[in-house]
Amino acid sequence: MEKEKFSIVVFSGDLDKVMAAFILATTAAAMDMGVTMFFTFWGLNVLRKKKLTSGKNILQKMMNFMNKSGADRLPLSKFNLFGLGPAMMKVMMKQSRVQSIPEMVETAKSLGVKMVACTTTFSFMGFGKEDFIDGVEEFVGAATFIGLAKDSKISYFI
Amino acid sequence: MEKEKFSIVVFSGDLDKVMAAFILATTAAAMDMGVTMFFTFWGLNVLRKKKLTSGKNILQKMMNFMNKSGADRLPLSKFNLFGLGPAMMKVMMKQSRVQSIPEMVETAKSLGVKMVACTTTFSFMGFGKEDFIDGVEEFVGAATFIGLAKDSKISYFI
Amino acid sequence: MEKEKFSIVVFSGDLDKVMAAFILATTAAAMDMGVTMFFTFWGLNVLRKKKLTSGKNILQKMMNFMNKSGADRLPLSKFNLFGLGPAMMKVMMKQSRVQSIPEMVETAKSLGVKMVACTTTFSFMGFGKEDFIDGVEEFVGAATFIGLAKDSKISYFI
Repeated sequence: MEKEKFSIVVFSGDLDKVMAAFILATTAAAMDMGVTMFFTFWGLNVLRKKKLTSGKNILQKMMNFMNKSGADRLPLSKFNLFGLGPAMMKVMMKQSRVQSIPEMVETAKSLGVKMVACTTTFSFMGFGKEDFIDGVEEFVGAATFIGLAKDSKISYFI
Repeated sequence: MEKEKFSIVVFSGDLDKVMAAFILATTAAAMDMGVTMFFTFWGLNVLRKKKLTSGKNILQKMMNFMNKSGADRLPLSKFNLFGLGPAMMKVMMKQSRVQSIPEMVETAKSLGVKMVACTTTFSFMGFGKEDFIDGVEEFVGAATFIGLAKDSKISYFI
Repeated sequence: MEKEKFSIVVFSGDLDKVMAAFILATTAAAMDMGVTMFFTFWGLNVLRKKKLTSGKNILQKMMNFMNKSGADRLPLSKFNLFGLGPAMMKVMMKQSRVQSIPEMVETAKSLGVKMVACTTTFSFMGFGKEDFIDGVEEFVGAATFIGLAKDSKISYFI
C-alpha cells in the first residue's frame, strides 16, 4: 500500500522556521508517511554548501554574499541581533537536546525524507547543482511539486 | 467535470513571497486546476492602485503611507535595505526572464486565476473598492473563502 | 456525524498573523467545523500569562525577556517601530470593531475552538504549564498534531 503523503514548501531560510519544518517532516516520516520537502528561495540555503559567494553575475554574487549559505548559519525570523539571537537559540537547542539543522538534515535523510531543490528559483538565484550538499536527490520545478502536493494528506508552505 | 481546486491565502505583501504565490498559482492554472488567490492584510497591496495615501482616518492614512501601495513597489521579506534589495531582486528577475509582479498579475488573469480581495480586512485597513486595480472580480469574506478552501486539493497560507 | 476538521499551526507570534489565524479559526468554528489551533514557537506567546521572565536558565530568561509575553503585547510582522505600529493597529482594530487578541481568544473558546500548546517547543523555550492562561486544554507533541492534520479538510501553517 502506498504511504500517505506529507509535503512542505520550505520557502523560509530562518533557523526557527526551518527547525519547525524539520520537526514536522521527521515526525511524519517516523509515523510512516511519505515526506517530501521542496526547498525554494531562502530555503535553498539549508541545502547549500558553505562558501561565501556564488552566482553568475555581480548582482547574484552580492545577493548571495548577504544571504550567507549553509545550514548552520541560518538567521532567526525574530531577534536576529546580528547573529546573537541564532547563537543563543543554538545553545538552547543543545541544552534541550534538540538537534542542530545539519543534524536534522541527516536524520531526515535516514528516515527517508525526500529533499528536493526548486529548479525555478535556483537558476534565478544563480545557484548550480554543484552548490548543493550531498543527498539532495532531485531538482524539480513547481509543476512536479504541485502534482505531488495534490496527492498529499497535508501540505504546508513554510 | 469540475476542476480540482487550488486556493491560496496571500497574507504577505513581500515581493519574494508574492512571487512564490504567483509561480504556484500560475503553474497550477496551467495544469488545469481551478485556482483562487484570496488577498488579505499586506497581500492587498498587490491589488491596490498606486497612490500615496488612502484611508478614512489619520491612523489608516499613516499606516497606508508606510505601507506603500502597488504591485511594483513591494518590499522583500529579507535584505530590504531601504529598497535596494527589491531593486536588485527586480534586476535579477529581469535577467532570468522571471516576470515582474504586475506581469504575473496579468498572466494569472489570462490563465483564469481568480483574484479576490478579503472584505474583512480591506474595510479594516480603510480601503474601498475604488482602490483596487481592474480584474479583481470579487470581494469576499473569510466564510466564503473557507467554503472554497475546504474543497481544495491544496490550500496554502502565504 | 463527525465535524469536518480545520487545523492551524500557529508558529508566528506577530499580531497581524495571529489575528488572521483567529479570524480563520473562529469563522470556521461558526461554520460548524471542528477547529484546532496548535501553538508553537513564537505563537506560544499568545497563550502565555503576562510576566517579564520565565525560563530555567539565563539564556532562556534572556530570550523570554526579549520575547515579551501575553496576547495583548504581540508585535507586528511589519512596521513594528518599537511598538508604535502595534499601538496604531490596535486603535484601528477598535475603530473597526475588530476584536483584540485576548477577546479573540475568549471568542474562540466560546465557539469550541481547541487551543493546544506544543510540548516539543515549550520545554525547549523553558516554559512550564503554569506559564499558560486558563483554557489551554491540552499540551501535545508534533505526532499528535500531525495525526489530526491528516484528517483535516484544511490545515495551515501560519
